[in-house]
Amino acid sequence: MGDPAGIGPELCLRVLREPAVLTECTPIVFGDAGVLGRVADACGLPPPETAIKLNQWEGGRAPRQPALVDCGAIDAGAVRPGEVQAACGKAAYAYIREAVNGALTGRTAGVATAPINKEAIRAAGIEQPGHTEILADLTGSPRVCMMLASEHLIVSMATTHIGFAQVPQRLSSGRVLEVIELTAATVARLRGHVPRIGVCGLNPHAGEHGLFGDREEERFIEPAIEAARAKGLLVEGPIPPDTAFVPSRRREVDAIVCMYHDQGHIPFKMLAFDTGVNITLGLPIVRVSVDHGTAFDIAWKGRASAESMIQAVLWTARLGSRHVPRNR
Amino acid sequence: MGDPAGIGPELCLRVLREPAVLTECTPIVFGDAGVLGRVADACGLPPPETAIKLNQWEGGRAPRQPALVDCGAIDAGAVRPGEVQAACGKAAYAYIREAVNGALTGRTAGVATAPINKEAIRAAGIEQPGHTEILADLTGSPRVCMMLASEHLIVSMATTHIGFAQVPQRLSSGRVLEVIELTAATVARLRGHVPRIGVCGLNPHAGEHGLFGDREEERFIEPAIEAARAKGLLVEGPIPPDTAFVPSRRREVDAIVCMYHDQGHIPFKMLAFDTGVNITLGLPIVRVSVDHGTAFDIAWKGRASAESMIQAVLWTARLGSRHVPRNR
Repeated sequence: MGDPAGIGPELCLRVLREPAVLTECTPIVFGDAGVLGRVADACGLPPPETAIKLNQWEGGRAPRQPALVDCGAIDAGAVRPGEVQAACGKAAYAYIREAVNGALTGRTAGVATAPINKEAIRAAGIEQPGHTEILADLTGSPRVCMMLASEHLIVSMATTHIGFAQVPQRLSSGRVLEVIELTAATVARLRGHVPRIGVCGLNPHAGEHGLFGDREEERFIEPAIEAARAKGLLVEGPIPPDTAFVPSRRREVDAIVCMYHDQGHIPFKMLAFDTGVNITLGLPIVRVSVDHGTAFDIAWKGRASAESMIQAVLWTARLGSRHVPRNR
Repeated sequence: MGDPAGIGPELCLRVLREPAVLTECTPIVFGDAGVLGRVADACGLPPPETAIKLNQWEGGRAPRQPALVDCGAIDAGAVRPGEVQAACGKAAYAYIREAVNGALTGRTAGVATAPINKEAIRAAGIEQPGHTEILADLTGSPRVCMMLASEHLIVSMATTHIGFAQVPQRLSSGRVLEVIELTAATVARLRGHVPRIGVCGLNPHAGEHGLFGDREEERFIEPAIEAARAKGLLVEGPIPPDTAFVPSRRREVDAIVCMYHDQGHIPFKMLAFDTGVNITLGLPIVRVSVDHGTAFDIAWKGRASAESMIQAVLWTARLGSRHVPRNR
């Protein structure tokens, strides 16, 4: 359900009754009945039809229709919409933990996460700065990467939320290879065949044979591409970044591996601003996130678009139905 | 005319007869009659209708119709299409020099450059690595920047052909301000009003208040924006780079100032792969370039698209008719 004070609750209310979702899967919301009741009133939305307590869920009760698992993680009356509150950060963490447990035990096909607030998480004394780190920690997954997916484009990033100047030193052929492999495995599930993966260079014109940059392409990217090919993957690159995303080029590949946040995010958001989802690769469970934040300014007003949340649930269902759980 | 062995000559032959060009201006090609004759034969294109010798041009003769100024800079019979040749680099340099002189003396409205070959230029013993540097040198312009323009998007770059890792150390508030001012001045000429300029951050999410990066936004970009506003310019930013180019955001501004090559080139080429032009700002003359190279693999075969060259001439005419020459 995400942060109770954000737009997560109203998005969940919409998802529980969204026809496009209900034909693909049975959504189970991990949240709080009291919060959803207040938000339903505030937004003029119907409350969840079915709700069970967390201990009922833990005892093995599995709803066959769209339902809420009421985690009882927060005093609903104390939630102030649109405000950073430690109690909300703590509750959001509890929803994630229960949803992850459900997926790890195979009771759900995967987790679609509504937005959390980084400041509220920090105020709650939780060490990990964001969703991805929390999930990596809860599932014991040291090697993850972010993928953005839409019908138009799939990109994954070798580095994400770090400073521009730190990018070159964080890259290595091992990391680039890891991201190529994680990307290829997930896209293979989506496409049903060995996918073609494009890999971007780091420097302008992919370095133009050492003319620009410190030969990062030759040092990190080319060796990773060679190693991936040796494992039977279909990989091309390093592609000059500015031509990788032109329409004719991007249609030649199933996904593009990028070296840094904006190399992937700029083209992705141009093509799929409202309908994109964020998939965490490298976890033992399927995890898809909305592509936006808590939007505190419009929380509990019924104005938030549920499009990205609906897409996140649909991609979770799509990936989850083809997911082979990793041995743990 | 660019490198005689590339696609420049055939593009010039097409421009001399292109109706869209002839309604806007009178194109004057600085090149070689012998080369254009051979290329016309090879491509099945008509040769220039009017040609005068360089000394006639220098003596003051000004053609009133589309014409060639024959610089006599190369032995046409010795040109091998599609090959790097020192003589071709030398000739290409001579065409640039004469075209620049024409613009500096006000006899032409500006210069649209066909592609040259960096290796041929170097083989000819010319120190400057590319067009922009040659033009900066010939016109004594220490402060230039690259702008890419199309009907869909205008971007200019604070840094261009340097390695990724060198970008942060090349940025300064002085440089960012300079690029904002150069951009605003040119876009004002194009739009006829004070333009709105967006300025991108460097780090993911424009640093998110110091969360990512070394506060480059606060150190270089925000001071430059403040200084530009103090001069009466309409500037906004630092904009998170991945949202700057989504359709709704990019339509709010007339141009976007980018911090590095691919931040501007990725979105630009996605929107205007074939029709973009490259404008050099900071010169005392108008200079627009095609957005592609010499294409040696298809040179002299009549297969090269003249679209970008035609656009370059049209943008030169558009900017040149509104250009206020700088005092020299």
